[in-house]
Amino acid sequence: MTGSIGPLAAGPDQLAHWLRLERVRGVGPETARKLLRRFGLPANIFAADVPALRELVSDRIAQALLAPPDAAALAQVEKTLQWAGEPGNRILTLADADYPADLLHIADPPLLLYVKGRIELLSRQSLAVVGSRNATAQGLVNAEKFSETLSAAGWTIVSGLALGIDTAAHQGALRYAELACGSTIAVIGTGADIVYPARNRTLAHLIAQAGCIVSEYPLGTAALSGNFPRRNRIISGLSRGVLVIEAAAESGSLITARMAAEQGRDVFAIPGSIHSPLSKGCHQLIKQGAKLVEAAQDILEEYGQQLEQTPAAAARAGGLPQQDTLLALIGFDPVDIDTLALRAGQDSASLHAQLLTLELQGRLERLPGEIYRRLH
Amino acid sequence: MTGSIGPLAAGPDQLAHWLRLERVRGVGPETARKLLRRFGLPANIFAADVPALRELVSDRIAQALLAPPDAAALAQVEKTLQWAGEPGNRILTLADADYPADLLHIADPPLLLYVKGRIELLSRQSLAVVGSRNATAQGLVNAEKFSETLSAAGWTIVSGLALGIDTAAHQGALRYAELACGSTIAVIGTGADIVYPARNRTLAHLIAQAGCIVSEYPLGTAALSGNFPRRNRIISGLSRGVLVIEAAAESGSLITARMAAEQGRDVFAIPGSIHSPLSKGCHQLIKQGAKLVEAAQDILEEYGQQLEQTPAAAARAGGLPQQDTLLALIGFDPVDIDTLALRAGQDSASLHAQLLTLELQGRLERLPGEIYRRLH
Repeated sequence: MTGSIGPLAAGPDQLAHWLRLERVRGVGPETARKLLRRFGLPANIFAADVPALRELVSDRIAQALLAPPDAAALAQVEKTLQWAGEPGNRILTLADADYPADLLHIADPPLLLYVKGRIELLSRQSLAVVGSRNATAQGLVNAEKFSETLSAAGWTIVSGLALGIDTAAHQGALRYAELACGSTIAVIGTGADIVYPARNRTLAHLIAQAGCIVSEYPLGTAALSGNFPRRNRIISGLSRGVLVIEAAAESGSLITARMAAEQGRDVFAIPGSIHSPLSKGCHQLIKQGAKLVEAAQDILEEYGQQLEQTPAAAARAGGLPQQDTLLALIGFDPVDIDTLALRAGQDSASLHAQLLTLELQGRLERLPGEIYRRLH
Repeated sequence: MTGSIGPLAAGPDQLAHWLRLERVRGVGPETARKLLRRFGLPANIFAADVPALRELVSDRIAQALLAPPDAAALAQVEKTLQWAGEPGNRILTLADADYPADLLHIADPPLLLYVKGRIELLSRQSLAVVGSRNATAQGLVNAEKFSETLSAAGWTIVSGLALGIDTAAHQGALRYAELACGSTIAVIGTGADIVYPARNRTLAHLIAQAGCIVSEYPLGTAALSGNFPRRNRIISGLSRGVLVIEAAAESGSLITARMAAEQGRDVFAIPGSIHSPLSKGCHQLIKQGAKLVEAAQDILEEYGQQLEQTPAAAARAGGLPQQDTLLALIGFDPVDIDTLALRAGQDSASLHAQLLTLELQGRLERLPGEIYRRLH
């Protein structure tokens, strides 16, 4: 008996074998890595015999590895290969050269990464920005502004697509994504073909275009609460540091921060009122050694970077055509003329002619109250 | 020629010689300490000859030391000795056994300390609580509550009698002063016979009774802005640690914190919103290594103390007669029945009888709106 699974074995890059390995009952990531270290690629595992496998795994698992996949497994593999073949989708295996190096170095790297969007972001310099789902209004503003500034400075912002701080972080990071600056990566706890929470459907769509969505879970995996804490190790694992914006005591963001510390990544936290329950988690982190940050500049300085030398600053100084810059500054959300003038560093009067041109070109629309929305 | 200054030499404890030494033109605290190390007491300095003095000081200073004091100096010395003889006043010299040991260990201890009030507080365990004169309402509440709790836990609270945080810190610390718990020390930048700012006259009077006022400046020294930063080294020097409640960037409270660090004392700071100018100083301190504190308990834990074991807790548990406890809980400011019930841990109904008894005894008065004021 061989490890062949028939026509699927001809799939690109032996991917079918990886997908089959992922689904063998009793084989978790740790066992999979143990087998891979011994046998090399998954095809070799399936081509091994029971005595060789028994040196590493139980008899039950050895039998399961050598049993032909059932119809459901085959159907899932086929469906997944089809998904991977669609434009913008990609599945990275541990053996893939594009698998993010920072993630390889954590204690428990995912066997497979289901990626939707700009895969090159996974190898860029990244910072995680995380926090409470029930954030304060100020916390949301902070998350968005810090992410916007860090993105403008060339950092890719990693977060978890949850409501609250995560959403604001993704939105802020997308602001300059088209200026060849940083962008955003959403590490999700469901299959990459599912959006959770549903309210973030539009945001997920934008991220899949201008950023990148990552999951370690097989397609179709629904939102299971147990999967989300484990997902946090990928958020920190992709990042050089983790910034916690607002977090209650004993909250999920503290898990991400703890994982970051265990992975040797930096932990940053924003302080707040000692009477705010949503600052308790950040204060706890600072007491444990996290760096207190008051501005994005604090983080940039930590990495020897000056705010004035950032790509967005260069772009704003004339590196990109003026109208494209203006469109990029509008970003993905409607924006009022005053905010736009502030971002562009011009007075609103001088923006009007450019905005009118863009409107006539059908590249943006003007809403009541001098609010502009970009048309994609 | 001898160092005798006539009848004043008979003053208590050679104090007159110390006062004369303090006034010799060109002799600052450092020169004075150098002379004292060589000659012992001030009387010996004035009894020395020029060649001996010239080994340590310039000819000009040696001549000044040996010149007989002028009439103004004699009048000041006489006035000061008279002040020192009044009840509750005391002048401590570097040679005095009651000179606070912690202050002796700083780089530049004052030659003389003019003390008004409970001198024994100077040798108790103390914490400085300082901050902005233009504090926020929340900052004032924090200063008062932290000081109240720390005082109840047996700590004496040192501050600078300024408006804002200092005032709130003194007031909070006085709350339990009569329960043999902590109290408060005001280190002032004027002569001990002057109250600055004038608005704190009543508070200064209360501190002189239930706490202690300390100055290194001769009687009659007016409020000179140059004296206040220097005064801060005494605030930290008397204290095991300094808690900064609210402080703007580059503010005086940061000087106190820096001096505390130089003196090997702990620095604690309360975080706040990153958008509040009055939190900038505290955040700067935390970045530099100050301990972030969210509650007085954080400081007590730093010193291995539990909040439940404090003197005030013991008193409230029945260590003092019930009515005296109640009077102490009222403190020095008028208090409403609900606040008092909270402090006493009883419901307001059960307090009414006791309060009526105290009112009939003439020990408190009842103001409109169920507010009670203690009569002293």
